[in-house]
Amino acid sequence: LIVARSIVTLTTDFGLSDHYVGVMKGVILNTNPEVDLIDICHEVRPYDLLDGAFAIAHAYRYFPPRTIHMVIVDPGVGSARRPLLVSADNHYFIAPDNGVLSLVYARAEDLTVRHITSSHYFLEPVSQTFHGRDIFAPCAGWLSRHVEPEKFGDPIADFIRFTAPQPKKVNDRLLKGVVLRVDRYGSLMTNLTPADVPELFTENPPAFKIIVGKSEVTRIKGNYSQGAPGEVFAILGSSGYLEISANRGSAAQTLAVGKGAEVGVVLT
Amino acid sequence: LIVARSIVTLTTDFGLSDHYVGVMKGVILNTNPEVDLIDICHEVRPYDLLDGAFAIAHAYRYFPPRTIHMVIVDPGVGSARRPLLVSADNHYFIAPDNGVLSLVYARAEDLTVRHITSSHYFLEPVSQTFHGRDIFAPCAGWLSRHVEPEKFGDPIADFIRFTAPQPKKVNDRLLKGVVLRVDRYGSLMTNLTPADVPELFTENPPAFKIIVGKSEVTRIKGNYSQGAPGEVFAILGSSGYLEISANRGSAAQTLAVGKGAEVGVVLT
Amino acid sequence: LIVARSIVTLTTDFGLSDHYVGVMKGVILNTNPEVDLIDICHEVRPYDLLDGAFAIAHAYRYFPPRTIHMVIVDPGVGSARRPLLVSADNHYFIAPDNGVLSLVYARAEDLTVRHITSSHYFLEPVSQTFHGRDIFAPCAGWLSRHVEPEKFGDPIADFIRFTAPQPKKVNDRLLKGVVLRVDRYGSLMTNLTPADVPELFTENPPAFKIIVGKSEVTRIKGNYSQGAPGEVFAILGSSGYLEISANRGSAAQTLAVGKGAEVGVVLT
Repeated sequence: LIVARSIVTLTTDFGLSDHYVGVMKGVILNTNPEVDLIDICHEVRPYDLLDGAFAIAHAYRYFPPRTIHMVIVDPGVGSARRPLLVSADNHYFIAPDNGVLSLVYARAEDLTVRHITSSHYFLEPVSQTFHGRDIFAPCAGWLSRHVEPEKFGDPIADFIRFTAPQPKKVNDRLLKGVVLRVDRYGSLMTNLTPADVPELFTENPPAFKIIVGKSEVTRIKGNYSQGAPGEVFAILGSSGYLEISANRGSAAQTLAVGKGAEVGVVLT
Repeated sequence: LIVARSIVTLTTDFGLSDHYVGVMKGVILNTNPEVDLIDICHEVRPYDLLDGAFAIAHAYRYFPPRTIHMVIVDPGVGSARRPLLVSADNHYFIAPDNGVLSLVYARAEDLTVRHITSSHYFLEPVSQTFHGRDIFAPCAGWLSRHVEPEKFGDPIADFIRFTAPQPKKVNDRLLKGVVLRVDRYGSLMTNLTPADVPELFTENPPAFKIIVGKSEVTRIKGNYSQGAPGEVFAILGSSGYLEISANRGSAAQTLAVGKGAEVGVVLT
Repeated sequence: LIVARSIVTLTTDFGLSDHYVGVMKGVILNTNPEVDLIDICHEVRPYDLLDGAFAIAHAYRYFPPRTIHMVIVDPGVGSARRPLLVSADNHYFIAPDNGVLSLVYARAEDLTVRHITSSHYFLEPVSQTFHGRDIFAPCAGWLSRHVEPEKFGDPIADFIRFTAPQPKKVNDRLLKGVVLRVDRYGSLMTNLTPADVPELFTENPPAFKIIVGKSEVTRIKGNYSQGAPGEVFAILGSSGYLEISANRGSAAQTLAVGKGAEVGVVLT
């Protein structure tokens, strides 16, 4: 009988220019050398809980059941904020209780949130500045060795959760959203989904304009290469959100627009 | 009997600031949890097929036989461009049919290029914007589970291939090349090889000058530390090309020259 | 009997924009496909031996015993500088003999430094520009297959080591240190430890000022979130050094100070 190795993913705002991610991996491997460590993203914007919430929410479902996801965006490290072990739809999450798992909670049908209190799993002495190393990584390691979740602490109901920015219907013709992220290609991911503006996603969409920064976008495309070179257009992005993109170019640069910019959709 | 785990490498222009690479890894692991995932490079210049072609061509031969190499630089995602499964000299490649494997084709002695048509391996629904996740990753996963290549689709002969920029012999004394890449150290990798200018690589090379930007390089060194601090010189780089480098410094910065710059070699 | 896979870590100044790290991993896997490859850091400042020395010294102890650590910051590649295989406190290190392991040597209680001379382990032909690929990676691969250290070469005593910058006691009230690193969050890691200024780390520290750049820092905090937004303060960092940090902000940016800046601690 060969049992598959446990998988632990890592999502952090640590960046890759320091040794911090490597140290956490060392701690996990020191607890369980037979684990597969997979980076989801370490370039979450520093201290940005919503950015971290999006990264993990868009990624975790693609992993096998029982994957353990460490999500360490932790500006409150060393304070009273609690460490959590979350079971959600047959995935595990280890993260600080600061809302960084909010979008996981929002999608989960089966959810248990535990306050990790079993300090005998921690790396001693526990620092006040790097719980990723001293608390979260060793807990991930022990969980990957099939220690049962209930051994880490009791369920809680008052965990912190926030809501992602929601589109606002100003009137029958105007919907206002926001740019949530800009990706490497300069695509602007908005908080608008097909459910918010179903008209845009019909086969023959009505005339519309999307106002972003000082520009108007009036075309929607099915794929990037349908755009003329340099043309900026709307498209359904791979995470299920309306995106403003360009073919072989950066919409963010062309429109001089970034994260947090307002996006107005006008059906004309 | 312990069979070695399959290896899947990833070469993309996705960068590391988003969750895209992590998502692809999740999909592969969800198909085959017993696979080793190795990043070759995710910083291929966005949409730059030649840059991607160089990254994979310079790396794949160092991996064990039967390694599966995913190469996703895919500006035509969602269009009619075909997904490919390529067998070349006992390595496998999974990539879009846009020429990004051209330099693999050029070196392969034993080559079979298949058009992947077996859509039952794909992740449903297939998006029009992220075939790395929906088509290429699951196919890599199934291939890593030893599904036979012929199960994915039939061989084709009209796959797209391009030629890398070739040096031009202007006259007996002047050869013109180009800077193909600038690496992290600021070394300028040209498209010139010892076969193009064998004189430079003899034990006592004749007098020469290499004109790059507004500067002339007149020395060739065997290793970096032979250069004086700040001196810019020619050297045989580790990928087999003539490079313009500096000892503990950046030739690109010193010469104010980048990718695409012309390189003239004059034997005086 | 299932034997755990060997672990090889990588710490380099190669960056992630090229294929160099991927190539080294291919070479290791080609020697031993059953190895786990873990990145510690590839963003060591180019050619900066002290920066590399800190990265590996702060990380290696967290890994399991018998981990093999490749540390490739190698401006002297191709010259007469020797390749080393080091055994230190039940960890292995493979690195050039240029001092990049100095801080490992400084901490090791049990130390053997070998000059790797067994060239039959090397990848032929050995280039003069990429020993990471041609010498260090294959040696790491063979060592991970449990080839005994003594097979690689004989112990030496004249290996190169340097001392990290030490704090200077100017007088009873003034201690001078230096900023060794700036991390992703903009925290300034100094070379001062609690042993150098024990007063700061008592429960009721005396009045003090830390002079960095043109600013004075007069508070010490137990964790980041104790600081007011924008406030710059001192804190005991996770690697055991005094750091100058900010809560959800960058001390480096706020103080306009970087690596190498002088840090004066004045007890008033």
